[in-house]
Amino acid sequence: MNKFKHLFEPRSIAVVGVSLDAARPGSQAVHALLKNSYEGKIYPVNPKYAEFEGMKCFASIEAINEPIDLVVIGVPAQGVLPALEMCADKKVPYAVVLSGGFRESGAEGIEREKRMLAIARGAGIRIIGPNCLGFANIHSNVYAAFGSITRAPKLKPGNVSLVTQSGGFGYSIALACADAGIGFRHVIATGNETDVDTVELIDALIDDEETSCIVAYIEGARDGRALLDAGRRALAAGKPILLWKGGVTEQGARAAETHTASLTGVYDFYLALFKQTGIIEIQELHEAVDFLKALAPGKYPAGRGTAVMGVSGGSAIVFADAGDRVGIRMCELAEDTQVRLAKVVPNIGAVHNPIDLTAGYFSAANAEKLAEAMHAVLDDAGVHAVCVNLATTGKAGSLAAAEVLGRIASATHKPIVVFSSAPASEIGDALSHFAQVGIPVLPSPSRAARAIAMLATYAEARVRIATQDRPPIHTEAVAVAAELTQIAATNSSLSETQSKAILARSGVSVSKDIVVQGVDGSVFDRMTAPLVVKIVSRDIPHKTEIGGVKVGIQTQQELESAIAEVLANARRHAPHAKIDGVLVSEMVRGGFELIVGVVNDEVFGPVVVVGAGGIYTEILDDTSCRIAPFGEDVAREMLDELKCRRILDGVRGGPALDVGAVVKSLAAISAFAWIHRDAVQEVDINPIFVMPKGAIAVDALIIPRKAQSQLDR
Amino acid sequence: MNKFKHLFEPRSIAVVGVSLDAARPGSQAVHALLKNSYEGKIYPVNPKYAEFEGMKCFASIEAINEPIDLVVIGVPAQGVLPALEMCADKKVPYAVVLSGGFRESGAEGIEREKRMLAIARGAGIRIIGPNCLGFANIHSNVYAAFGSITRAPKLKPGNVSLVTQSGGFGYSIALACADAGIGFRHVIATGNETDVDTVELIDALIDDEETSCIVAYIEGARDGRALLDAGRRALAAGKPILLWKGGVTEQGARAAETHTASLTGVYDFYLALFKQTGIIEIQELHEAVDFLKALAPGKYPAGRGTAVMGVSGGSAIVFADAGDRVGIRMCELAEDTQVRLAKVVPNIGAVHNPIDLTAGYFSAANAEKLAEAMHAVLDDAGVHAVCVNLATTGKAGSLAAAEVLGRIASATHKPIVVFSSAPASEIGDALSHFAQVGIPVLPSPSRAARAIAMLATYAEARVRIATQDRPPIHTEAVAVAAELTQIAATNSSLSETQSKAILARSGVSVSKDIVVQGVDGSVFDRMTAPLVVKIVSRDIPHKTEIGGVKVGIQTQQELESAIAEVLANARRHAPHAKIDGVLVSEMVRGGFELIVGVVNDEVFGPVVVVGAGGIYTEILDDTSCRIAPFGEDVAREMLDELKCRRILDGVRGGPALDVGAVVKSLAAISAFAWIHRDAVQEVDINPIFVMPKGAIAVDALIIPRKAQSQLDR
Repeated sequence: MNKFKHLFEPRSIAVVGVSLDAARPGSQAVHALLKNSYEGKIYPVNPKYAEFEGMKCFASIEAINEPIDLVVIGVPAQGVLPALEMCADKKVPYAVVLSGGFRESGAEGIEREKRMLAIARGAGIRIIGPNCLGFANIHSNVYAAFGSITRAPKLKPGNVSLVTQSGGFGYSIALACADAGIGFRHVIATGNETDVDTVELIDALIDDEETSCIVAYIEGARDGRALLDAGRRALAAGKPILLWKGGVTEQGARAAETHTASLTGVYDFYLALFKQTGIIEIQELHEAVDFLKALAPGKYPAGRGTAVMGVSGGSAIVFADAGDRVGIRMCELAEDTQVRLAKVVPNIGAVHNPIDLTAGYFSAANAEKLAEAMHAVLDDAGVHAVCVNLATTGKAGSLAAAEVLGRIASATHKPIVVFSSAPASEIGDALSHFAQVGIPVLPSPSRAARAIAMLATYAEARVRIATQDRPPIHTEAVAVAAELTQIAATNSSLSETQSKAILARSGVSVSKDIVVQGVDGSVFDRMTAPLVVKIVSRDIPHKTEIGGVKVGIQTQQELESAIAEVLANARRHAPHAKIDGVLVSEMVRGGFELIVGVVNDEVFGPVVVVGAGGIYTEILDDTSCRIAPFGEDVAREMLDELKCRRILDGVRGGPALDVGAVVKSLAAISAFAWIHRDAVQEVDINPIFVMPKGAIAVDALIIPRKAQSQLDR
Repeated sequence: MNKFKHLFEPRSIAVVGVSLDAARPGSQAVHALLKNSYEGKIYPVNPKYAEFEGMKCFASIEAINEPIDLVVIGVPAQGVLPALEMCADKKVPYAVVLSGGFRESGAEGIEREKRMLAIARGAGIRIIGPNCLGFANIHSNVYAAFGSITRAPKLKPGNVSLVTQSGGFGYSIALACADAGIGFRHVIATGNETDVDTVELIDALIDDEETSCIVAYIEGARDGRALLDAGRRALAAGKPILLWKGGVTEQGARAAETHTASLTGVYDFYLALFKQTGIIEIQELHEAVDFLKALAPGKYPAGRGTAVMGVSGGSAIVFADAGDRVGIRMCELAEDTQVRLAKVVPNIGAVHNPIDLTAGYFSAANAEKLAEAMHAVLDDAGVHAVCVNLATTGKAGSLAAAEVLGRIASATHKPIVVFSSAPASEIGDALSHFAQVGIPVLPSPSRAARAIAMLATYAEARVRIATQDRPPIHTEAVAVAAELTQIAATNSSLSETQSKAILARSGVSVSKDIVVQGVDGSVFDRMTAPLVVKIVSRDIPHKTEIGGVKVGIQTQQELESAIAEVLANARRHAPHAKIDGVLVSEMVRGGFELIVGVVNDEVFGPVVVVGAGGIYTEILDDTSCRIAPFGEDVAREMLDELKCRRILDGVRGGPALDVGAVVKSLAAISAFAWIHRDAVQEVDINPIFVMPKGAIAVDALIIPRKAQSQLDR
């Protein structure tokens, strides 16, 4: 890891705010460094002391006449900025500010945090914190931290790095993992994230050779796009990211606001990001534990076919139930596999999947048989992963199984996971052996099933995202940029007609419509019946109610009277309304209505949302979204997620609808939204009709960014 | 517990099948009895030995000249029936058959199991098993068991009883609970359940004074109604049942079939049963652990308002997220509460919910303050439960908190739960103290939230089910019984017209229709336009396609030509069809279509299902069911579960629909289905229109049981 190298591997650390009070953050940091035999230089700073813990104590940062890689600041809030200014003078590259009293504590703190950032930016100091527990580099015994991170039990070294906005809860994740034998590289609590944030750290950790897996707890990301990029980069690098997003529900978001006053962001957009990056979402402490265990061997199933073998029929059923819910398939075993199994499985057992080895099978006496059973199953091309249920198997049996499975695991690329519910106090030796040979042991069959599903999903994401289309960029879409900017600059919004014209040029099929000012003899030359006419006036919101809409117009005569009628109705019911004309459109019928929107989100930039339209919008919570831009394969994924998806294939004998056309439109809209992200705040297409042939946007509105901000005022 | 008293508290146990091979089930049972100092008499049985483990060994059951309460049989399958016959001769009341080789092992075993049941029924012997791990009474050191139940670690005595069809997996539940400090009363693995089954045991355990909570793992119940009754009885008795149903997914059910060849039953019906009994569903080992811990104190929240206080903002957010998903509300604290809190919470903390006590708050020095903070929160009427987040708080802090909370918990009826993620090795003293004072400690904030939700749901079920209406019994519904039986006896099925007439008399509003044979001048005297006419013929399945249906008929003249036309069309397109006449119905328009069905299930008896009709049926998986009979409040719950529910309140400015009318119909249908459970196999109402006023069943078919069984042949 080049970036942040001397933050995480500092050759020297100054700690500002040591004290005889051992509970003070600065004192805790120095004690942790000493206790863990940090090998670099330590410079305690406090003008009150000449010595601290047998080391020379400095009056200030200035007083240290050596280069300092990292300054840890643990003084009360009002002392932080002066200390940082001295860091600036001394060209210290990194600081960790443990102190609270910033953004989280009201107006004065907000101001102090702003000034802190200004100092940092001015001097090029990169800061972790403030209001944080700090970090530890477990491999190098660097403890720029206080609180639980510095306390017993010490984390053991390993290849998992943890980044967390919440120190207290993040460290709960670390402790739960440590309890299960998982070792760590870096543990970093970022607090207010004034400068360096979780996302930047995740990105840097991808380049850390000693980190193979990253776990993060975040409440809100400042820059969703940076997280998107980091996620994709981690996926390409084969370093899984487990991410726990806090504040995902309304109630959770409210709690988060009061916690760090940070924007939690829209959860749906995070979910889209997870799908677009292969980031693995976690929402439980034991999920972190289970998933890290399962990821540790670095073996991924090539598919979702799983064989289950063991001594507990109930456990196999529980695995099957849980597997069914997460797409893990109890695959059928090949004829040949079953023949091989029959030779080593007792008659009263079962050689189909789940394989019943019968009670008491796991034993030293059965070692050869178990080995052959495992080989038979692993040789089966339909088997992509194996779960071995030891269930309550005791000490000797578990150890015998561990030895056999260990030998076999080293020679296969297929993941093997074990379920055991025997107490660790009984089967400690077996557990150590399993750990040594890299076979994850999960404490329930359902958790084993979910861990395998996670591995499969991650492996699928790697393939899928690597091969995904880049979105098509319409030259015309690029060409409308100037037009959009101009409109945005002069108008508060675009009209429907303008919006549709722009979308049409960007690759979205739109229904034909024209605005006329009165009787127009040429309409039927350009449009096909039936037609719809609609009064155009910003001052008339409910056009149908005042007789401002007429549908099903077949002839020139009907058209003329319809135009006259809507104009007359508008004048009668809204005498003061400014009438811009009459919109004449081709009537679209017989398809299924979807709605498509673009939201230019503060955190994620343009996000495209598609959902069921019409009455379904109100009764189904049926939407899917992705961060723009994306290609047709991602657009297809979005549609596939909709509950109403099957309607598009034709229901009640109706024709199949043109899914391909909507897919093209979605990809085009995503490209449009991305290209014009500086000009467009929102796009609302409601509805787009999916027809047996084609997909036609009927109503559409583009809201420019400028107009949006005017509206907000 | 009077029933099964001498099964579970036997004064003497004979064990048939002891052997010098310690691994034999009989040997394991005797060893377990000896090791655990069982106080009754033990009679080992094996004709080969004169002595076994220093005790006299008997040649057979017959040879024992003392009364025997319980015989444990562990001989190979072919020896089981002879042994049971001797039990019959000796009038032994109870036997546990550990041996396999019965239903699970093919034709011979099935026959053996049948004969076993015949012996048992003939002699009045009640049997646990065969093919089971047996049971243990932990309080009285009775071990009529082998395998993991008899092995270390020994379960400690407590008030939880476990009944499980799968010995292996069931014991995994016991071990997971034991590991968390939970003690047991009875642990019973029932295997094939030839005679005594899980449900009968659950029912008996309700009457066991030493059992306060029952955990069960079942793959399939023979008698769903018995489980319904037991569940309701347990609820009334205040003894929560945690039930893990295995084989709930398609894949799980397939695995279960191959396991015990037992019917898994329809999962939706189990879910309905859980709602109708307050049985708490579990689907994870740690759920059993968490929920048993939370239930142990016997304290239930009076509502869903929860206060969270602690030292980790992240943990509070995670609690809020998880709580949001299970309906646990972070309640607003009263003004007064906040004022009291402000006096004992540091300034940089927060006195609103979640309450931020600030890092390091838990300490002996803060004991008084913490006590006052807890009192303030518990005194708040809006707070029904409290979660205290210790998070990573260490040894001293955790112990200090345990002492304060322990004192307070003893004086409140509001549940207090604690989240701690510090390792047990560090905070063992605090954990012991919490256990002693009855405060559950959960290992994650989300699990704490779900445990509180479970307590709230259980408490709500107690109130709700106790006050639920009994279903209305229509006298007319009873009167149709003879008619139904007669029709079932003579016809293979009822016609739509007959079905609707019967439902109408049972309290369901149906659309008016009559069958005419030709032009009928009196139709408009009895019916209101618009009308629909439809050809009636079992030989014409697709009536619309052949012009056999005409809608929107307003006048007598239109009616006459419509009737003539459908008859002519039928004759032309299906010249050989038997025409029964023409159905004339009032056309129902403008409401929302639901479908209602009754299934007379083999396990559960009549179950009523309601779902979204029309196109929604195909795209939404939107149904809700309850076991019949039930009253209007349960019917309303069913509707409230539907995704399409909000349509009934009126969408897009439409009128609200008559929910009350559907509710009445559902309750009436449930009563009908229950009363006629011996005559009716199925009822299909598709659709029932929910109108602004009323609900009208338009198409309905009753399928008698006899007709059903004829169809099956």
